[in-house]
Amino acid sequence: MQFSSILLSEAVESFSSLPGIGKKTALRLVLHLLDEEPNMTENMAAKLVKMRQNIKHCQRCFNISDNDICQICSSAKRDKSLVCVVRNIKDIIAIEETGHFFGVYHVLGNLISPIDGIGPEDIRIAELVSRVDSKEIKEIIMAISPSIEGETTIFYISKKLSHSDVSISTIARGVSFGGELEYADEITLGRSIISRVKYER
Amino acid sequence: MQFSSILLSEAVESFSSLPGIGKKTALRLVLHLLDEEPNMTENMAAKLVKMRQNIKHCQRCFNISDNDICQICSSAKRDKSLVCVVRNIKDIIAIEETGHFFGVYHVLGNLISPIDGIGPEDIRIAELVSRVDSKEIKEIIMAISPSIEGETTIFYISKKLSHSDVSISTIARGVSFGGELEYADEITLGRSIISRVKYER
Repeated sequence: MQFSSILLSEAVESFSSLPGIGKKTALRLVLHLLDEEPNMTENMAAKLVKMRQNIKHCQRCFNISDNDICQICSSAKRDKSLVCVVRNIKDIIAIEETGHFFGVYHVLGNLISPIDGIGPEDIRIAELVSRVDSKEIKEIIMAISPSIEGETTIFYISKKLSHSDVSISTIARGVSFGGELEYADEITLGRSIISRVKYER
Repeated sequence: MQFSSILLSEAVESFSSLPGIGKKTALRLVLHLLDEEPNMTENMAAKLVKMRQNIKHCQRCFNISDNDICQICSSAKRDKSLVCVVRNIKDIIAIEETGHFFGVYHVLGNLISPIDGIGPEDIRIAELVSRVDSKEIKEIIMAISPSIEGETTIFYISKKLSHSDVSISTIARGVSFGGELEYADEITLGRSIISRVKYER
């Protein structure tokens, strides 16, 4: 795609450097900015830069935070003895949306994946172990997606915590709500039978 | 979607104010910026602001331009007597991509649409008439998409230019290359029969 303006072409290039934004979409976004008042673009740019320069990671749970300790960790309403271990902050947002969790989090940052060169020391396992060793934590819920990397990570963490008497659970694996049995893969379906739940009548 | 960071939430808000970008996509883009170096965000922001503040419209054809006269209008290789009339700069980019047009352009900015309150005086028809009156132009190609608004605009412009001897054509309407006849709408198919082209053998 060729443009008769270098300014335009640089702006399109910027947007299309973002994941999932192609040249056509980038052009559409730039033309939208041109249709709007200049201060709309200036505000947007200022907010992105401010966010990138000032955002921190919570020193306790490594969630994204405006302060040294995030809103969740500093809330008096949250149970500090219950920790949900997640891969990244997208998982925190998803779990918060459910409204079913009232503990705090621990963000690993990634999962162990030897194939991608990600070892246990590359993710925040040592930090989790030291949080457990501080004796504040009673239960850990592993909210890690079921995959080879996820299972490896859970197994490694559980070994690392074998000296402690903290209780470890994983989120339930099973057929999705509204999911059809015939479309569930055999591992999910197999586990949902093994982990069957007593029907209360 | 709720975030534990105001900075994050403002950045997501900014991205999702763009057309076609929802909250989930906006979050994905912001998390990408967080994964990259801060200067990536700063560069992007600077380029968008620079573009928005400095971009001009070509004083001749109203294409987007870095200077008072755009690259196309100021090129010695382009035929200034042949003007292609388009709705917006996206159309210019599409036509330039074909590599089949060597004249110059005139950007109307919109099409006449009484239902949306857009009259002939809201689009750049007067400017086109004065370009024609300056006697430089021999032929006008209306590259306007076939719709009620497009046909109205073409009709209005042709009336406004009836005093001049400039030749006016429209781009050919017909079945797309590779298009199946059975899927073509009846107006397109009807026109493609009326405007049939002699087969050279």
